[in-house]
Amino acid sequence: MSSIKGIAASNGIAIAKAYRMEVPDLSYDKKDVDNPDKEVERFHEALDTSKQELEKIKNHALESLGEEKAEIFSAHLLVLSDPELIQPITDKIKNENVNAESALDETANMFIDMFKNMDNEYMRERAADIQDVTKRVMAHLLGVTFPDPALIDEEVVIVAEDLTPSDTAQLNKEFVKGFTTDIGGRTSHSAIMARSLEIPAVVGTKEVTGTINKDDMVIVDGIDGEVIVHPTDEQIETFKQKQARFEEKKEEWAKLKDEATVTSDNQHVELVSNIGTPDDVAGVLNNGGEGVGLYRTEFLYMGKSQLPTEEEQFEAYKSVLSQMKDKPVVVRTLDIGGDKELDYLDLPDEMNPFLGFRAIRLCLERDDIFRTQLRALLRASVYGNLKIMFPMIATLEEFRQAKSILEEEKQNLQNEGTDVSDKIEVGIMVEIPATAVMAKQFAKEVDFFSIGTNDLIQYTMAADRMNERVSYLYQPYNPAILNLINNVIEASHAEGKWTGMCGEMAGDEIAIPILLGLGLDEFSMSSTSILPARTQILSLSKEEMASYKDEILSMGTSEEVVEFVKSKAALQ
Amino acid sequence: MSSIKGIAASNGIAIAKAYRMEVPDLSYDKKDVDNPDKEVERFHEALDTSKQELEKIKNHALESLGEEKAEIFSAHLLVLSDPELIQPITDKIKNENVNAESALDETANMFIDMFKNMDNEYMRERAADIQDVTKRVMAHLLGVTFPDPALIDEEVVIVAEDLTPSDTAQLNKEFVKGFTTDIGGRTSHSAIMARSLEIPAVVGTKEVTGTINKDDMVIVDGIDGEVIVHPTDEQIETFKQKQARFEEKKEEWAKLKDEATVTSDNQHVELVSNIGTPDDVAGVLNNGGEGVGLYRTEFLYMGKSQLPTEEEQFEAYKSVLSQMKDKPVVVRTLDIGGDKELDYLDLPDEMNPFLGFRAIRLCLERDDIFRTQLRALLRASVYGNLKIMFPMIATLEEFRQAKSILEEEKQNLQNEGTDVSDKIEVGIMVEIPATAVMAKQFAKEVDFFSIGTNDLIQYTMAADRMNERVSYLYQPYNPAILNLINNVIEASHAEGKWTGMCGEMAGDEIAIPILLGLGLDEFSMSSTSILPARTQILSLSKEEMASYKDEILSMGTSEEVVEFVKSKAALQ
Repeated sequence: MSSIKGIAASNGIAIAKAYRMEVPDLSYDKKDVDNPDKEVERFHEALDTSKQELEKIKNHALESLGEEKAEIFSAHLLVLSDPELIQPITDKIKNENVNAESALDETANMFIDMFKNMDNEYMRERAADIQDVTKRVMAHLLGVTFPDPALIDEEVVIVAEDLTPSDTAQLNKEFVKGFTTDIGGRTSHSAIMARSLEIPAVVGTKEVTGTINKDDMVIVDGIDGEVIVHPTDEQIETFKQKQARFEEKKEEWAKLKDEATVTSDNQHVELVSNIGTPDDVAGVLNNGGEGVGLYRTEFLYMGKSQLPTEEEQFEAYKSVLSQMKDKPVVVRTLDIGGDKELDYLDLPDEMNPFLGFRAIRLCLERDDIFRTQLRALLRASVYGNLKIMFPMIATLEEFRQAKSILEEEKQNLQNEGTDVSDKIEVGIMVEIPATAVMAKQFAKEVDFFSIGTNDLIQYTMAADRMNERVSYLYQPYNPAILNLINNVIEASHAEGKWTGMCGEMAGDEIAIPILLGLGLDEFSMSSTSILPARTQILSLSKEEMASYKDEILSMGTSEEVVEFVKSKAALQ
Repeated sequence: MSSIKGIAASNGIAIAKAYRMEVPDLSYDKKDVDNPDKEVERFHEALDTSKQELEKIKNHALESLGEEKAEIFSAHLLVLSDPELIQPITDKIKNENVNAESALDETANMFIDMFKNMDNEYMRERAADIQDVTKRVMAHLLGVTFPDPALIDEEVVIVAEDLTPSDTAQLNKEFVKGFTTDIGGRTSHSAIMARSLEIPAVVGTKEVTGTINKDDMVIVDGIDGEVIVHPTDEQIETFKQKQARFEEKKEEWAKLKDEATVTSDNQHVELVSNIGTPDDVAGVLNNGGEGVGLYRTEFLYMGKSQLPTEEEQFEAYKSVLSQMKDKPVVVRTLDIGGDKELDYLDLPDEMNPFLGFRAIRLCLERDDIFRTQLRALLRASVYGNLKIMFPMIATLEEFRQAKSILEEEKQNLQNEGTDVSDKIEVGIMVEIPATAVMAKQFAKEVDFFSIGTNDLIQYTMAADRMNERVSYLYQPYNPAILNLINNVIEASHAEGKWTGMCGEMAGDEIAIPILLGLGLDEFSMSSTSILPARTQILSLSKEEMASYKDEILSMGTSEEVVEFVKSKAALQ
């Protein structure tokens, strides 16, 4: 047996034989052809078969994962119907008398290279999409089988270099007990999907595909980030016990689903969820979320060829609000631009997209886009308990300008005779250091704060959280971060307002005791983290945590903070 | 007459006729040639003539601008001797039987495109270098004259799209009375050169080359950022008076050269200079600088094919320290990486270089580079009053690690019998928000702080200062920035340490009264700003400025701060 370390991406233990998700040999010979028309026909046949398959996968995804997540296959299908890709391929076959394989490969690669080299995450993802669908068409041209995880009908652990969106969308929880990959991190697409599907996963192992063969017995320990290959019987027994303990824990957690989140000294805090689509609401309710602390609205704008209409947006917001009934739903207005680009907006490339033209900066300049979103939100407000939050606010002027646009649109709607709730709270994300420093001034004007730690940490430490070479500086427990958080919470309470947190940190077991001590009012996290967090909070005394506050805030390093918390708080 | 607005890049008024710095028509016909060997010979002749010219320009630059600035022409000469560029050109002529013009143009463009598209400031500059020298060779092939500002022998104002390093290096102050360009900003290369040469300049006008013809009479007002074309006699008279007043002011300033910088209530602050090379020390002394507040050591590492040796560095540091005698010299250790890349280090491209692997982050990993620099500094320390400063410090651990490496090298040198000063202060740049927030903790361990506002502002506001779309967020007077600065100064004083500032802000006439009120101890700026700043400070009362501190720090916006300062301080 051997043991491979990786990043624990999704809780739980899986024990099953390996299913290698491998793309077959797609190499081909470039050939001249005598009958190019026949070759074009062969190409169109492969295209049609691929489309039929994608339709099937899409329907499967629709059933098992919901509408929004199936959208990606609409995008893939669009690629296969895109004349800008198809036409040059058939032209090439006809003009150069070459076989379909080489025309497809050369043309697709040209597009892939072009998109890949753009300094733009979104375009790079499009390159990945084209690569994905091209491989499928190539497999049909060559008459080889393309892996189809949807067809798995026995218990397996998937072993892959990485999982694409189309791969993950096909995973059937009944048979796929876990997966492990060579690349990726805790916030990569496949890791997020694993948590959302509640499939144990270990990612970023660097070596699983090089080490594990088809049908090898494998244990994936998504709790501690370890993969065991060829386990001994004894190991299987040990991990089965670990699995059982985890299941017991989950059952314990499940009992807290309808409980309030109160500390041992009877202080209530709110435990709410981060969501991306109306489909995610089911997970919030199943996991006992007391509301939605962050509804990311970007998904409405992505993977599309044009801006979503007011009506489309209204339906999505109404759906979330109605499902959540009177529970609070904090909607973040569009946070696009920077690394999250939309090709139909044609934004310029930027040298430092994280410090660039994005979110509220873009919305204030393109207020047509902003007003459409606000109108949709205002119209939906009567269906539930809506709170609106502006992202990337750096100055009071930006907040005032955004709020006055909101007021204008509210007035416009009322003049048109449309009902709008008069209880909508309007707050801001605190994710820029300036805003955390100026919290006292902001607290006089906003209804609430929600601290976005992912960005706040990277700006405060001046370290790109996606850049591995400086990732050691991404330090949630750095006293600088904690002092800024404290400043925000104190400022809000002084004005009778509340502060939430919607970054990764809010669900972190080291952070929770600290944040409780600082007086954080609302913790927003992935739905699957809610019950473990509630369990932890029930055992903590807020008063005790608050008594450590000054000591923690005056510490020098992240390490000191972690050691201190571990020594004090009843960590699980 | 017409008036064109632009960015005031260098103080003063110039009145003279226009000299259009124009590249001649370099278009050519692509031709097949019968005798490629003759064509290769013709190419080598053009190459040799260009090299001879560049040698002349280099020597001229050596005399008028000093050694370091002439280095760029060594780089240009290297390009013309680079077999990786020259070989493909002659190959192309021989293999394709084409004329030298087309072989040169096509080959050079290939390289230029390749470098230009790299997401890397340094490589883009190399592309500009190749473009620069290729044009010169092309002009010789075509038998047309390439503009040679070194040959100007009458008083002119230069009008250009932009000025390249080779252009500015050729400017003779005696004849070139001013210049104006279509592009560029206050921190672009040509603007910095203009201030260093004390030539009035207005940049970023967008339209001077489209509006001004050869020999048109032109006024360049580098004080208010205006260019007047075809001025009336009356206007010439008015501007001559403005020029005279400016000259008078300069004379007044000059009288303060050897004065101490004391406020009207007799409080001393230190006015020191930012420099890049030993050649810059003359400017510091001529302008009455009380020391060097920031010696940027990057120039030693740039425009070279390998790392500078310990000996080369030692000579440079010794030169600056000896020239400055007992006046303080704060040397910043290597701040490279991110956008300032060195091709011989082969650093990976980064998505957000400003949030990347640079400065101390790079030095702690590549401690071979760091140790060489520290040894050179320690050896030079006996020649003057050296203070060492680490850039981009984000955590206490980084400072402790850097300092312990310094201590180790000091010990090594002493063991080798080398003299090292025992009075070297060791401080840090405060340019990362975390460090400003944690100033209290840092102040216990460092000897001094120097606030780097250029970076501190961009990180605190999360806005790339080079990105025009978010440049409105680059707000030095934003109360968030002022609160952080205040936190740093207070923390240093509580521990008996001092705080300086070496960003653009330190020389800004709105900022100076505020910074004085916050208790800043040392102001570091371009040498030419020192005397105007001293004049301003002599007229200000530190006590009065300090009395406004609380009011300013609790303001909401940058605009409020500016209005308040203008209403209170005796601004010139």
